[in-house]
Amino acid sequence: MSKETETEEKYNDFGLGDKEQAQGYRAVNKDGSFNIVKINVPFFERLNFFHNLVTMPWANFFFYIILGYFVINLVFASIYMVIGMENLTGIRGTTFFDQFMEAYFFSAQTITTLGYGQVAPLGLAANIVAAIESLLGLLSFALATGLLYGRFSKSSSKIKFSDLAVVGPYQNINALMLRVVNPQKNELLEVSADMSVSFKGKVSHLREFHNLTLERSMVFFFPSVWTIVHPITEDSPLYDMSATDFERKDVEFIVMLRAFDESSSQTLYSRTSYKAHEILWGAKFTYLGERKADKLHIDVSGLNNIDKNELN
Amino acid sequence: MSKETETEEKYNDFGLGDKEQAQGYRAVNKDGSFNIVKINVPFFERLNFFHNLVTMPWANFFFYIILGYFVINLVFASIYMVIGMENLTGIRGTTFFDQFMEAYFFSAQTITTLGYGQVAPLGLAANIVAAIESLLGLLSFALATGLLYGRFSKSSSKIKFSDLAVVGPYQNINALMLRVVNPQKNELLEVSADMSVSFKGKVSHLREFHNLTLERSMVFFFPSVWTIVHPITEDSPLYDMSATDFERKDVEFIVMLRAFDESSSQTLYSRTSYKAHEILWGAKFTYLGERKADKLHIDVSGLNNIDKNELN
Amino acid sequence: MSKETETEEKYNDFGLGDKEQAQGYRAVNKDGSFNIVKINVPFFERLNFFHNLVTMPWANFFFYIILGYFVINLVFASIYMVIGMENLTGIRGTTFFDQFMEAYFFSAQTITTLGYGQVAPLGLAANIVAAIESLLGLLSFALATGLLYGRFSKSSSKIKFSDLAVVGPYQNINALMLRVVNPQKNELLEVSADMSVSFKGKVSHLREFHNLTLERSMVFFFPSVWTIVHPITEDSPLYDMSATDFERKDVEFIVMLRAFDESSSQTLYSRTSYKAHEILWGAKFTYLGERKADKLHIDVSGLNNIDKNELN
Amino acid sequence: MSKETETEEKYNDFGLGDKEQAQGYRAVNKDGSFNIVKINVPFFERLNFFHNLVTMPWANFFFYIILGYFVINLVFASIYMVIGMENLTGIRGTTFFDQFMEAYFFSAQTITTLGYGQVAPLGLAANIVAAIESLLGLLSFALATGLLYGRFSKSSSKIKFSDLAVVGPYQNINALMLRVVNPQKNELLEVSADMSVSFKGKVSHLREFHNLTLERSMVFFFPSVWTIVHPITEDSPLYDMSATDFERKDVEFIVMLRAFDESSSQTLYSRTSYKAHEILWGAKFTYLGERKADKLHIDVSGLNNIDKNELN
Repeated sequence: MSKETETEEKYNDFGLGDKEQAQGYRAVNKDGSFNIVKINVPFFERLNFFHNLVTMPWANFFFYIILGYFVINLVFASIYMVIGMENLTGIRGTTFFDQFMEAYFFSAQTITTLGYGQVAPLGLAANIVAAIESLLGLLSFALATGLLYGRFSKSSSKIKFSDLAVVGPYQNINALMLRVVNPQKNELLEVSADMSVSFKGKVSHLREFHNLTLERSMVFFFPSVWTIVHPITEDSPLYDMSATDFERKDVEFIVMLRAFDESSSQTLYSRTSYKAHEILWGAKFTYLGERKADKLHIDVSGLNNIDKNELN
Repeated sequence: MSKETETEEKYNDFGLGDKEQAQGYRAVNKDGSFNIVKINVPFFERLNFFHNLVTMPWANFFFYIILGYFVINLVFASIYMVIGMENLTGIRGTTFFDQFMEAYFFSAQTITTLGYGQVAPLGLAANIVAAIESLLGLLSFALATGLLYGRFSKSSSKIKFSDLAVVGPYQNINALMLRVVNPQKNELLEVSADMSVSFKGKVSHLREFHNLTLERSMVFFFPSVWTIVHPITEDSPLYDMSATDFERKDVEFIVMLRAFDESSSQTLYSRTSYKAHEILWGAKFTYLGERKADKLHIDVSGLNNIDKNELN
Repeated sequence: MSKETETEEKYNDFGLGDKEQAQGYRAVNKDGSFNIVKINVPFFERLNFFHNLVTMPWANFFFYIILGYFVINLVFASIYMVIGMENLTGIRGTTFFDQFMEAYFFSAQTITTLGYGQVAPLGLAANIVAAIESLLGLLSFALATGLLYGRFSKSSSKIKFSDLAVVGPYQNINALMLRVVNPQKNELLEVSADMSVSFKGKVSHLREFHNLTLERSMVFFFPSVWTIVHPITEDSPLYDMSATDFERKDVEFIVMLRAFDESSSQTLYSRTSYKAHEILWGAKFTYLGERKADKLHIDVSGLNNIDKNELN
Repeated sequence: MSKETETEEKYNDFGLGDKEQAQGYRAVNKDGSFNIVKINVPFFERLNFFHNLVTMPWANFFFYIILGYFVINLVFASIYMVIGMENLTGIRGTTFFDQFMEAYFFSAQTITTLGYGQVAPLGLAANIVAAIESLLGLLSFALATGLLYGRFSKSSSKIKFSDLAVVGPYQNINALMLRVVNPQKNELLEVSADMSVSFKGKVSHLREFHNLTLERSMVFFFPSVWTIVHPITEDSPLYDMSATDFERKDVEFIVMLRAFDESSSQTLYSRTSYKAHEILWGAKFTYLGERKADKLHIDVSGLNNIDKNELN
């Protein structure tokens, strides 16, 4: 059994599209999402309110909160109307609309536990509904509190990958290099990287999948910029491959970064991919530092800068 | 000392039932729970309110919250009654029942810090009780807040195991394979698997326990489906065992999955087991992917699909 | 340089009392605390409110909350008194005491954001104080909320160690064994153990410190009971030591357990120690399981039970 | 390719200033911060409210909360003024200033959900604004709650490094040693240390970067003091270097500590650096323990004490 075959079988394991020979399939998008659609998932298995509420954009999140607030007050206002306006003190309105509005705002004052008291419940039914509504309000806002903070503490870090990777001279050989930057001031610690590649097998209908050895797979701290380097030694699956081979074999490099974010005490993951056309041959990234007085100035905007002199 | 004996002794270590020779004992259920009952545990050692409140079904959780709310208001209403209705302003009722209801809803308005004020405490005793009740309310709802969010963020991910495991051709040998799927949209990262087997020893009255080497014990990301493979090499404790041996030796395979859930920043664990009758010989799982345009469609409903052509 | 000397130097590293030759010093107590007193710590470096608030007994925690609530209302009541009762609406009292009480309860209604409104601020000064007090109240209860839940979710698991460790027959040799139990229903996962020993060196004035190799240092799950075993092989620092040597050399075994608690998604640590008089020679722990129908019954109360037949 | 060159290239990786030959550059300050300024970062990438709010000093944090509270009430008071005072009940003021103040405090009572009710909204517009304001208040204080607790639980531990490191006799060779102390009562567990050094290369214009092997890189618990030791063996990059070499080559030692804080269930990181002038040659740290009765007293104030007798 050849090593080749084994690798192909392994790629089969985790559903990244091993049987797709058509040119140009991309398993992982630049933003780290997968080009995978899960179909025929039963509705209740698919449901993950928490995930949705934590990952949706802020605008959507607030829209749903405001919508929920609007609707739930509508429901409770209707209940108070059904119970009858004579069971709320301080109602001034005489038309249906005015009374509904007063019931509506009484509901809002109850669910937020604001309770001005200019309107207040009278009698058993209205009091029971108000007691339930205030309990519901406390529990709902409890959930919103958690979600809001969960979202806020989560969105705190965004590592940026260079748009292109380069294959360029490294010591006596070539290396595949890409660059990452943390544009923010938060500390990222014990940052580790993993790189893998998939490409079409020589004879088989399956794609091959390989992990790539990195010159350094972990840095203890990540103050500004880090160049991730895969030296193309004889052991590398990229050995002897040319830019044309990259195109023809439809390579896809997947890079994953993991870091501990000290601000939030959370582990963060970031991911991207590079296809053949996103790899520049014979280039090298420009050095971004410049010393001024005691400080080293790092020009973060130069993340994608290529050292043209090194191009061959 | 043979390796056999050592293994048996080791199995003794963590109380999964090493001395049970009767056919059909299952240490781990399909849902991952253990067939173990702890007896003679002193009441106060057994108590773990937090665990109970976090793991009980949602219906029970809300039932206890509502029950607690109901009872605590009952208690405080009684206290206000004992102090006397003349110490609450705005009481309109004249019968015992009406006054108790007013005291009850005043309590509800106090514990939720709603405080309409149509009823309010007068005098030292009623004010002290109300001040204590509102403090108690804030602390209780603080706890409920935490529990609610803890539960909500916890229940976010459910990995599914295939109902059956298969023993089928893998490269030049056989392998034991099972499949897992993440039906939801949340990202699971650094997913690692461990598999072990227990079976009756050849001569001893004890069960043997072995870890099984996996072809791949970790995947960096888990976009859809992962086939977990134990190749039955010469080093495997399953080497030379047949389907009949599986039955006779009463095998039990225990699989454990660990994953980092990016939504909740929590580590999740999932577990199941396979007994002899849940293992299909000479089969292979069906490939679930189909490429449509840019996307790979994964048919999650086919988790248990067996490739019939491969059956022998 | 002998291995012995190196070990002694190492023990020097972390201040567990390497120069103490007097018989009977115990670095770690049975409950896991250290027999260490840090002296001459500047007041502000020693301060750790969070640690104190999280680890103090519940009774103390609630005492401080109630005391804080009492005192802060006293302070604000005094401020309202200074501002003048004419700046609060609805004050009925005429004596100093009555007015102070009304101011006091108005403060309580403000800090909890209860706000009945039977008393309300009038004029700039009283309104400013009330606005500040309600902000302070929200922030204080925010902190109390976090602490309360932090404490509640923390206190969820208590692993129990056997009172005694035993040195008894294990396969063809002796082993040092102790037993741990999780009496509760919460799942503990990836439980790992570390054991070390310290004893008086042969010739030196320093204590030696050694890590002890465990037969199994990690279990993936811990459904009930786990026997932690250090086989006393030729490589063990305990090799050829007798019960008398244990006494004479003043051995101290320190055991540390780490586990992931699924309920709270937290890593838990537990620790204890065994001195010579807490080690029973020639004994073995009793097997605690009994199968009843489908279930294995584990008699948790037998944690310390020794198999007398094995005593020699 | 020499090992030297490889090392230099590696140092290039993570932007700590590899091309700076000028004497005296310090990559990491004593307090663990980096002497790095990120320039040309687009405004929106630089933004990290969460990081800022979690790491700013307490005084600033409270200043922003109070400022926010002040400003938001100003905004809402203005809105209520625009809507018209006739839409609030209980307004007593007749001048603009008095009315604005009443609107202002009504806003404060609404956003904190205090709701005395002596002033209350009348009519659609005022009610809508009040309903929105109370919702906004609940969400804002939710965020403040999370931040407050996040900050409070975070600031719980401060490991202290010795001001100086020493190079002194260790067994038969020399070692670089520094000392750390945990002055507080919280338990730090599984404390691990990493040390690295950078210095000017012999011939190149680049700085070299090396990890240093520690005698012990992890301790399971850290009750008081830990001496971190790098033995200067033949494999050490410091081998044969003198105090003068340290100065001339402009060495910088970077030490990183990681610990699990049991109080907060969080992983803590701490970092510092030592330049040539902060290293004392031929010295040894003083032993800090003294046994009194059952306890070992550790004199934490002696963290920097050097054993003068050992100086040579």
